[in-house]
Amino acid sequence: MSILVVGSVAFDSVKTPFGERDRILGGSATYFSVAASFFTKVRVVAVVGDDFGPAEEAVFSDREVDISDLERVSGRSFYWSGEYGYDLNVAETRDTQLNVFADFKPKLSADAKETPYLFLGNIQPQLQVEVREQVGAKLVAADTMNYWINNTPDELGEMLKRVDLLIINDAEAREIGKEANLVRAARRILTMGPTRLVVKRGEYGVAMFTGHSYFATPAYPLEEVFDPTGAGDSFAGGFMGYLAATNATDEAAVRRAIIYGSVMASFNVEEFGCERMRRLTYDEINARFRELRAFSHFEEAEMPPF
Amino acid sequence: MSILVVGSVAFDSVKTPFGERDRILGGSATYFSVAASFFTKVRVVAVVGDDFGPAEEAVFSDREVDISDLERVSGRSFYWSGEYGYDLNVAETRDTQLNVFADFKPKLSADAKETPYLFLGNIQPQLQVEVREQVGAKLVAADTMNYWINNTPDELGEMLKRVDLLIINDAEAREIGKEANLVRAARRILTMGPTRLVVKRGEYGVAMFTGHSYFATPAYPLEEVFDPTGAGDSFAGGFMGYLAATNATDEAAVRRAIIYGSVMASFNVEEFGCERMRRLTYDEINARFRELRAFSHFEEAEMPPF
Repeated sequence: MSILVVGSVAFDSVKTPFGERDRILGGSATYFSVAASFFTKVRVVAVVGDDFGPAEEAVFSDREVDISDLERVSGRSFYWSGEYGYDLNVAETRDTQLNVFADFKPKLSADAKETPYLFLGNIQPQLQVEVREQVGAKLVAADTMNYWINNTPDELGEMLKRVDLLIINDAEAREIGKEANLVRAARRILTMGPTRLVVKRGEYGVAMFTGHSYFATPAYPLEEVFDPTGAGDSFAGGFMGYLAATNATDEAAVRRAIIYGSVMASFNVEEFGCERMRRLTYDEINARFRELRAFSHFEEAEMPPF
Repeated sequence: MSILVVGSVAFDSVKTPFGERDRILGGSATYFSVAASFFTKVRVVAVVGDDFGPAEEAVFSDREVDISDLERVSGRSFYWSGEYGYDLNVAETRDTQLNVFADFKPKLSADAKETPYLFLGNIQPQLQVEVREQVGAKLVAADTMNYWINNTPDELGEMLKRVDLLIINDAEAREIGKEANLVRAARRILTMGPTRLVVKRGEYGVAMFTGHSYFATPAYPLEEVFDPTGAGDSFAGGFMGYLAATNATDEAAVRRAIIYGSVMASFNVEEFGCERMRRLTYDEINARFRELRAFSHFEEAEMPPF
C-alpha cells in the first residue's frame, strides 16, 4: 500500500557541536518520505520555490519518491535555521521564514486522493484538516508541535478528531493532555480522537498507548548524535512505511513498526540532513532491528515466596 | 545466598504534590533491605540513634531483615528533609543532619564478613571502601551520588576499583564519565573498575552496559508517582535480591534482575516511605514482572528490499 505525506520541504541551516551546514534540504515531508521510501511507495504533497533545483529533486527521485504533487511556485522555499547545544534534545531556532509556504493551499491530484495511508506532517492544523478531508485513507496519522498547541488549540482539536494515530514527543503529549504524568496525559489524548498515541522520547525511546495496551522501547544507543534534525519525521516515515508495506494494523505489527521507525531515526541522526539515509541498505536496517530486539528482550521468571 | 547492605537508616520528612509526612523511616539501607527481603536473607550494617524505636525496628523484623549489625548509639539518627515538585524527578533538599552518622565506623560481625553478596549504599566512598575490604564477597555492587562525585573524586575512584557493579542514575553517569552522551560515559566508567554499569533513568527505565553487551528496559508506567524517595534503593534491592536468590550472574539472569528491581521501585513510589512494600505480595511482584515483559517485547521481522 502507498503513503501520502503532506508537510514541509525546506532548506535548513543547522549548527551542532559537531559542525554546521548551510541551506541543506530538510522539512518534515522530506525526512518522512525518504525514510518511508525504504518500505513502500510514497507521494509528497508540499510546496517549494525557485531555489528547489535538480540537486534537491535528486533526494526524492533517487529514492523513487513521487513528487508529482509537489507544487512549485515563484519565490523562496520554507527556510529554518537552528542550533543545538551538547544537550541535543532541544533546538534553538535562530530564524524561520515561511516564504512560499505562507500561502500554501494543498491541491491534491486524483491519485493522491486515493492513497490508503496518510501522514499529516507538522504544519498548521487547518491545512492538515483540509488535506485529510480530501483523502479517503484507510489509516491517518499526524504530528504537531507546541506552536500549534498554544496558538491554534481549536483547529488542533478539529484535526485530532480526524486522525487514527497521533505521533508526538513527550513534552507535546503533556501539553495536549494537560497532565505532567505521561500515562494520564495519554489517557486524556485518547479521548480526543486518535485511538493510538505514539510518544517520541528522544534518547529514551518511544512509548505507545491505546485504550487497552501499552508498549515501550528504548532508543538505539548511539555514541554520536550528529544532528537530531528530522529524527521525529524519519521515525514516522519508518513507522508508517512498515505499516503500509505490510498493510497490517494489529498490535504486533504496530510494535514492529515502532522498531523500524526507531531504526530509521537512529540512522538519520548520525549525519546532517538526509545524508545517512540516502546511502542506507536493507542489511543495515534489518541488522539494527535485530540489535534493538536483542537489547530489550528478557526471559520469563517467577519468583517463589522466600 | 544472603546479602549484606551498608548504608543509611534515617528519618525523612518528605513533601510531594500529593501530601507530606514527618519523620518516617527511610535511608538507603532501609529501602534496599526491605525490597531485597522478598528475594533472600538480608543483613544491615548501619547506625541509628535513640530515636530508633520498636516501630522502626518492626519495619525490618516484619520482613525478617537481620539487624544484629545495626549499631545503636546515643544521639539522633540521620535526618533528611526534602520536597518534590510536579516534576518528580528531582528532590529539593531542605535539610540534612548527619547526627550519629557523622562518626559512623562500620564494625562488621564475623558472619557479616562472610556474606557472599554486598551492596554499598550511597554513603562516603571512604566508608564504602572500608566495608568492602572487610567482606570476602562474591559480588559487590555500589551506588553513589553527585555530592561524592564532586567533593571526594579520589576516594570515589578507589571505591570504583573495588566493585563489580555500579548502580547510579543517568546524571551521575554523565558526571563520572565526563561525557554528555550516555553511551560514551558508560564506556569510560567501565574502564574505572566495575565490569557492569546499571543506569537508573527514572520514568524512562533502566539501561545496563558491559564491555560487550547492552540492555534497556522501560519503567513500569504509573499514573500516580506518590513519593519517589527510595526508588533507586528499592530498585537496587530487588535487583541484588534476585541475583543473590538465584546465585547467577549470566546476562539473562542479570536482565531478569533488572526487571525485578524495576518492579520493586514501581511499587515503592506508589506510597510514602516503605508503606507499599511492607504489604506487597509475591503475586503482585510476579504479575508486574509479566506486565513489563508484555509491555516491551515484540516479534522478529525482516524487511525485504522494496
